[in-house]
Amino acid sequence: MSYSVSLVRRQPFRFGCEVLRGVAQVDMMANARCGAVFAVALFAAGWQYGLYGLAGAAVGTLVAYALGVDRERVGAGLEGFNGCLVAVAFAVFLGPGHLATWILALGGAVVAAVVTGALVTLLKPWSLPTFTLPFCLTASAMTVAAPGFQRVWHEGSALSALPRTAHGDPSLGWSDTGHALFSNVGQIFLMPQWYVGLIFLVGIFLADRHAGLTACVGSVVGTGTAWALGAPAADVREGLLGYNAVLVAIALGSVFLARGVWSLLYAVLGAAASTVLTVAATSFFAPFGGHTLTWPYILTTLVFLVAVPSFPRLQSRAGL
Amino acid sequence: MSYSVSLVRRQPFRFGCEVLRGVAQVDMMANARCGAVFAVALFAAGWQYGLYGLAGAAVGTLVAYALGVDRERVGAGLEGFNGCLVAVAFAVFLGPGHLATWILALGGAVVAAVVTGALVTLLKPWSLPTFTLPFCLTASAMTVAAPGFQRVWHEGSALSALPRTAHGDPSLGWSDTGHALFSNVGQIFLMPQWYVGLIFLVGIFLADRHAGLTACVGSVVGTGTAWALGAPAADVREGLLGYNAVLVAIALGSVFLARGVWSLLYAVLGAAASTVLTVAATSFFAPFGGHTLTWPYILTTLVFLVAVPSFPRLQSRAGL
Amino acid sequence: MSYSVSLVRRQPFRFGCEVLRGVAQVDMMANARCGAVFAVALFAAGWQYGLYGLAGAAVGTLVAYALGVDRERVGAGLEGFNGCLVAVAFAVFLGPGHLATWILALGGAVVAAVVTGALVTLLKPWSLPTFTLPFCLTASAMTVAAPGFQRVWHEGSALSALPRTAHGDPSLGWSDTGHALFSNVGQIFLMPQWYVGLIFLVGIFLADRHAGLTACVGSVVGTGTAWALGAPAADVREGLLGYNAVLVAIALGSVFLARGVWSLLYAVLGAAASTVLTVAATSFFAPFGGHTLTWPYILTTLVFLVAVPSFPRLQSRAGL
Repeated sequence: MSYSVSLVRRQPFRFGCEVLRGVAQVDMMANARCGAVFAVALFAAGWQYGLYGLAGAAVGTLVAYALGVDRERVGAGLEGFNGCLVAVAFAVFLGPGHLATWILALGGAVVAAVVTGALVTLLKPWSLPTFTLPFCLTASAMTVAAPGFQRVWHEGSALSALPRTAHGDPSLGWSDTGHALFSNVGQIFLMPQWYVGLIFLVGIFLADRHAGLTACVGSVVGTGTAWALGAPAADVREGLLGYNAVLVAIALGSVFLARGVWSLLYAVLGAAASTVLTVAATSFFAPFGGHTLTWPYILTTLVFLVAVPSFPRLQSRAGL
Repeated sequence: MSYSVSLVRRQPFRFGCEVLRGVAQVDMMANARCGAVFAVALFAAGWQYGLYGLAGAAVGTLVAYALGVDRERVGAGLEGFNGCLVAVAFAVFLGPGHLATWILALGGAVVAAVVTGALVTLLKPWSLPTFTLPFCLTASAMTVAAPGFQRVWHEGSALSALPRTAHGDPSLGWSDTGHALFSNVGQIFLMPQWYVGLIFLVGIFLADRHAGLTACVGSVVGTGTAWALGAPAADVREGLLGYNAVLVAIALGSVFLARGVWSLLYAVLGAAASTVLTVAATSFFAPFGGHTLTWPYILTTLVFLVAVPSFPRLQSRAGL
Repeated sequence: MSYSVSLVRRQPFRFGCEVLRGVAQVDMMANARCGAVFAVALFAAGWQYGLYGLAGAAVGTLVAYALGVDRERVGAGLEGFNGCLVAVAFAVFLGPGHLATWILALGGAVVAAVVTGALVTLLKPWSLPTFTLPFCLTASAMTVAAPGFQRVWHEGSALSALPRTAHGDPSLGWSDTGHALFSNVGQIFLMPQWYVGLIFLVGIFLADRHAGLTACVGSVVGTGTAWALGAPAADVREGLLGYNAVLVAIALGSVFLARGVWSLLYAVLGAAASTVLTVAATSFFAPFGGHTLTWPYILTTLVFLVAVPSFPRLQSRAGL
């Protein structure tokens, strides 16, 4: 570890930028200023979440240095964003104030770095990125295991329950809709407040205007699909049905495919499909007390990206 | 879409054949006449199922045209069969008479076409076909999500429940056995009537006599395994334990491996294994309200086909 | 089959060694003497378990001969160890005294041989071994399906239940700790007795002293992690939380990576992660009545091994 520590000492600015780029990469933006705005959003949701997020991204980046990961990946923030999400998720699900949560959050960020390394190799034959899969795998395992450990679990009874038929009122008012459109962006970092989502959205626009617009399209499609199918308005308002649609729209509409009409249509279809998958995933996880996290986004985007070589009308961007 | 629409206008006969081949490919037959017989069977089970099945196959084929999929695949009906099954499954599980079901069925067929494209790429390194995996993925997501959407779900309470120990009488009479042998073929399309299964079987024989015989072998092995292990007779009679065995037997005994004694033995082993897996899958899906669909067939056949290069006694057919 | 039978007749000693190596390969040791000690351990736990284990390994090896599998794999015992575990697991979960259990155990060993063939092909692009994945797939399917078959299930009600928050006392006494350290080794073969675990450990030391030491390290890390996080002492004592850690430590610390400080640290991290994953897997399987088996070991080791090419500080051993 001494090597990476000395690097941090000599080049604190560069390391700081890599950590912020790590925070920004949660929304696929390789941009330190965007990451700074994201950090502000996390602090606005709660100062502890801000600390967890930055610490998680820093640990992920440090482990990557220690294990000698390719410099280009580390520089782009690709080794930090899963650690960032893991730490924030542990704070949200286990309570941010416990020492046990801090230890597990940082340990989880270390494990997420290893999982990232595994997925980089595993997905190479198809030239696919890891997305937030290392986060989802690590955080799913930890949150499902947590109620089985008495020094970890402080939340009363476990969360496992058989899924029920939805009973809440599905009619969306203007207030609900407005909240939903921004909360969809905030829930990517597990934050339900609409103003936090607004700050995140500002960060995306700062990094890439086109991505900001597709994020808005995704949020509208997700909310619209949820409304049309009759999801409970209370859930829609908190952004629980639309955050995967936002991520899918950014990924397919702006980041991984050549921009244009066909990729936008493709992104809209993916965003709608991911909204259905969000409810399916929530039911799937319910009996054993798991969380939906960004699984629907990952699965939808993986499928839609892997399909691209079969569809000559669509073209992947860059080296994909 | 204009291109594909014009194609449909100029070459309606060719397009119709591709749709029928799509229906036939559910049982791995690239034969339009067989597809026509299958369509008759669906109409015999209920006129709405026939419409859903044809519409689903047509949508899948049209999307493939629109996205520029390889013509040979479309021509063989390989782009239609998952859409066909998706539409039929939605009609069965959500009720055929609702407008919402129609919209979701056709939307699901579009998504299944994208999933097909993904799996074609994903399975290329091992030269594997997609089987009904796009159908199973799309229909599983939709049926698990459905109770969470009030404008989609009209069936009362959700289906999720903890699996129980079997209590029904396991002794099979002649009537049960006769029903089971044909219903096993019908349940591939989610239809429990024995006479519907009989029409499907006629379709298979029409396309390929050898496949028809292996289908019968699979039906016997599935029913026999279920009886020997003590499954409830009421379930066996409805074909719920044997439809995967029929598909596995066709796939391993007739379609993907060089025909002969070894591949027949291999098909029998696979059919028996898939019968056990059918019960396991049903228990797996119970707590979150999922359906078994043709998952056991897919998993068994994938494993048995992927194993072939390790076993010099077996040889794959054609370009596999 | 006649060919393989004649081979067994002419070369019974060689075949016996291959079967024993099959038993030893459960702990990744290609050593017939180690397998003999393992067999003694199984007989010490119950004479029927010894018979099941040897018969399962023999069936797996025979099927491999019959299907013409690569001789080198068979000779190293790589075709026997999953059959061995499948047979022992069926005896443990379905009761060793029933004829149905014997038939299913041997049939399961045949299916596990096919699954092994599939995974050899499937994992070839990443040069990965199969681990106990064929065992876990086959035994999971069978044990989840078992309560649905009346001639198979003699254990009263099914095992499915929603996971609960842990309530047992988490404080470990000396007696608990001592039991846990050895039982962790025994639970790899599903045996909870500490003295059985001790015999297994002797077998590992006999084959490879370094592997024996890393097994001890894994057992200490697993027990320590479970204690630190607050798992119920009764479960820790029976070895239920540490057996995956033992396997992970052997795999990463001794077998698949170049031995040294970095691989040892990596093994310790993997062992700790697998302990958390053990509890997560137990919760995951609870609602549909599945067993944890060695899934956590497989998943952890797969991820940690696949990650190696991303981490220049680590190097894989031999042809990996």
